[in-house]
Amino acid sequence: MADTEGGERRGRRRGRRRGAETESDAPKQVIEQRPFQQPRLPFPPTELLSADELEKIHQSSLTVLKEIGIDIIHEEAKAILKEAGADVQPDGDRVRFDPELVESVIGLAPEAFDFHARNPAHTTRMGENYITYCAAASAPNAADMQGGRRAGNREDYRNFLKLGHQLNAVHIWGGYPVEPVDIHASVRHLECLHDMLTMSDKAIHAYSLGKQRNLDAIEMVRIARGVDMETLKTQPSVISIINSSSPLRLDTVMLEGVLQMGRHGQPVVVTPFTLAGAMAPVTLAGALVQQNAEALAGLVISQLDSPGAPFVYGGFTSNVDMKSGAPAFGTPEMMRTSIIGGQLARRYRLPYRSSNVNAANAVDAQAAYESVFALWGAVMGGVNMLKHGLGWMEGGLHTSFEKFILDADLLQMVTEFLTPIGMTDADMAIEAMREVGPGGHFFGCEHTQSRYKTAFYNPIISDWRNYESWTEAGSPEAYGKANRIYRDLVAAYEPPAMEADRREELDAFVARRLEEGGVETDF
Amino acid sequence: MADTEGGERRGRRRGRRRGAETESDAPKQVIEQRPFQQPRLPFPPTELLSADELEKIHQSSLTVLKEIGIDIIHEEAKAILKEAGADVQPDGDRVRFDPELVESVIGLAPEAFDFHARNPAHTTRMGENYITYCAAASAPNAADMQGGRRAGNREDYRNFLKLGHQLNAVHIWGGYPVEPVDIHASVRHLECLHDMLTMSDKAIHAYSLGKQRNLDAIEMVRIARGVDMETLKTQPSVISIINSSSPLRLDTVMLEGVLQMGRHGQPVVVTPFTLAGAMAPVTLAGALVQQNAEALAGLVISQLDSPGAPFVYGGFTSNVDMKSGAPAFGTPEMMRTSIIGGQLARRYRLPYRSSNVNAANAVDAQAAYESVFALWGAVMGGVNMLKHGLGWMEGGLHTSFEKFILDADLLQMVTEFLTPIGMTDADMAIEAMREVGPGGHFFGCEHTQSRYKTAFYNPIISDWRNYESWTEAGSPEAYGKANRIYRDLVAAYEPPAMEADRREELDAFVARRLEEGGVETDF
Repeated sequence: MADTEGGERRGRRRGRRRGAETESDAPKQVIEQRPFQQPRLPFPPTELLSADELEKIHQSSLTVLKEIGIDIIHEEAKAILKEAGADVQPDGDRVRFDPELVESVIGLAPEAFDFHARNPAHTTRMGENYITYCAAASAPNAADMQGGRRAGNREDYRNFLKLGHQLNAVHIWGGYPVEPVDIHASVRHLECLHDMLTMSDKAIHAYSLGKQRNLDAIEMVRIARGVDMETLKTQPSVISIINSSSPLRLDTVMLEGVLQMGRHGQPVVVTPFTLAGAMAPVTLAGALVQQNAEALAGLVISQLDSPGAPFVYGGFTSNVDMKSGAPAFGTPEMMRTSIIGGQLARRYRLPYRSSNVNAANAVDAQAAYESVFALWGAVMGGVNMLKHGLGWMEGGLHTSFEKFILDADLLQMVTEFLTPIGMTDADMAIEAMREVGPGGHFFGCEHTQSRYKTAFYNPIISDWRNYESWTEAGSPEAYGKANRIYRDLVAAYEPPAMEADRREELDAFVARRLEEGGVETDF
Repeated sequence: MADTEGGERRGRRRGRRRGAETESDAPKQVIEQRPFQQPRLPFPPTELLSADELEKIHQSSLTVLKEIGIDIIHEEAKAILKEAGADVQPDGDRVRFDPELVESVIGLAPEAFDFHARNPAHTTRMGENYITYCAAASAPNAADMQGGRRAGNREDYRNFLKLGHQLNAVHIWGGYPVEPVDIHASVRHLECLHDMLTMSDKAIHAYSLGKQRNLDAIEMVRIARGVDMETLKTQPSVISIINSSSPLRLDTVMLEGVLQMGRHGQPVVVTPFTLAGAMAPVTLAGALVQQNAEALAGLVISQLDSPGAPFVYGGFTSNVDMKSGAPAFGTPEMMRTSIIGGQLARRYRLPYRSSNVNAANAVDAQAAYESVFALWGAVMGGVNMLKHGLGWMEGGLHTSFEKFILDADLLQMVTEFLTPIGMTDADMAIEAMREVGPGGHFFGCEHTQSRYKTAFYNPIISDWRNYESWTEAGSPEAYGKANRIYRDLVAAYEPPAMEADRREELDAFVARRLEEGGVETDF
């Protein structure tokens, strides 16, 4: 799954021509970066709960599902559940699930699956000990140093695509990095997915906002991948986040997404957004019980309708500031729920989704420490799908171009951290120590000289100059450096190659669907 | 070991009188904070190396000690080693250690010990799964927003003492937070330790810079604790960092420190400062082999001279930027060596020291992410003594007042993260979910109302206001908020109580030693 090594630095002028190079995913002239490669957790995930405690969360969720139930706002889903023996409220939406029904679907979905990109070099593994980094998604605003914070628009959307296509730390798209509200909702999915499938060759996400949008997305990815529908059904190639309307409700479009995606063999990520103290109980255990009940309800519907359909367990339990009600992210509460969420996902033998998130308004120390705390919880908890890996700010209300670059650096550092160290005899360096001896220096010895170029991670953002050189350079901070790199990368962007027949077919499909007016809306 | 709960916010005016309150370590009027309390790692530390791989590091270290040896620049230490059977170079300093000699001392030092402060409420546990947070130490410069970066001086030194005394996240002093170079070296230890022992009541560190300074420090802490020397010898009350002169050399004052501290029952922390690619091999395994060989040499000398003396295994293996030679910290390389360092310390059943460090020049995103990465490696690696926990910047070249406050927040978040979540039946919140039901809200329910005040960690720095309120407030960033809090805390400082007889004895001792001229220097 790796393609090319990041090359050396060759100059930074904007708009510089790249000459005859054809490989498209290594912006060699702007930054050095690690190759496109998924990290794997090389040790067991951290466990905060004992087996008994984990069982208590599970059993409490079963009690919630049996005694309180979930509102299922979808007639077909209710019929499927009733057929399977669930207790469906007559003339209402409340559905109560017997523990046996829940237990009966556990183990049907795959523990892991390959997630296909139109460029096979960008296909990833979802599950096991693999981690997939996703770009931030769904923010209503974009922000950068020059333009400040503004409503999402197609130009910003496309600029994020240009970054994410070039940055190897983006493994897949987790949705639209920013919501381009200047495109009418009736056709937004067509325009946006056309951009995403042509401006980038990485695997994509589609929003579940009604059956036709799901079907359009599935058809578009089928065309872009150049396969027939039967093949696509066996090859997960587009993923969809399904958020419950916490507490304890699954809405129509989300349930439709579960059904349509599953019937086409495509994965869903059922993610209750359970903010403790607001849409979930104020106790972390209670919020997790609710998260788990909602996720299990989604699993039951998915697996009853399409047994074996790929399914990702989503955890997104954080807390609010109890003084103001403001949501908080990257908190010590979220670190613990991220880890316990991973324990729950593994109990159900499902891939696990968590997030790299923060609540800062500026790309300052707060944004950085909340993000790394979030990463700490997610990674040590055994995350498989890291949503909002790059660019997320302000509790999801804006995506930052600078944070996108900074996060590429953070994620590459996580990958490097998870890479096992060399343990050969030569790595023990006993001969080098003999050569250098007490009081000596290792800079010049052969052991160092033959390894120094690749020995250590080379950061994108960190400035390690001494104080004097740094002051002479104008005391630059991380935010400014990230701004320069983001603009250079946007300028350096070149679209990836796409087979002409696929491109023609995709263009024609979108043109036809646009002509049809896309999807009906009431505005 | 906890004392008072952090109280509520009561106003922020500088210089406000605190009235008749006598408790001294909760600056209630400036910030809310967690109580003084050591976190405990509630799960097994992360292990990066298998048992076989760990053994390979150990065996390679034994090979280095046997075949290459260590330069021991101390006649008495060489005599002790020769007496024990080590191969001491005639007319030289090189000492080679048989594996049997090394193995013979493993297990003599305690796995954990109480580390005594003059205020018993501030006594900490060093070892097992306890973590002790230390303030930053030994920087030649101090910095803040108003004064910029300047050479260390006594006023800044004292202002750091004022912060550290009030902040419950400072468990012990790890040395002088900044080196007050305006105090002559002959008397600096007397003046500085007198300040530290009177302006704060937390446990202290003394530098090993010659026998007399060690003895002065031990006598001063004996007086401050109000015990006789026989009692002090059984109660670790002052700790000393022993840095090897990597590669493979232990210098005179450091070795003298090992001997003097051990003979008085006081702990040393032997910490090789092994920067891979500079003073240690460029391979991480090689740097760890060297770190381990140097630490084991210190252990042998300590335990041969004072069997059972408290000893902390120090790990400080990071890397340099191979382009410039600049040292780097909080890197993915350091995260891995921190974790493996913990595995080595536990193999020898010793408490483990690691660090919260970064190489940033400004308190920006870089400072924050490098710090949290460093914390991630140290904490998950099973650190017991977290050196440079608060304030360290620029690879140790300056201590920042603002970073000191920011780190108090980071460390409190780590403590909160490590606190087990409630798992009672009431914590499962099933009745609350029944009451709220699908589509409802938890803000108002009794389950929330009875818990919300203490449900979540309340941060010192993080600004969770919405974007509009935050913009109206002038778009404040973390650095500015930390600056205001640090200045408020310095202004709010009141010295802790001290028994009059101890204070008189301490003053008299220092006065006498100052009159004697302190310790002879050649300048």
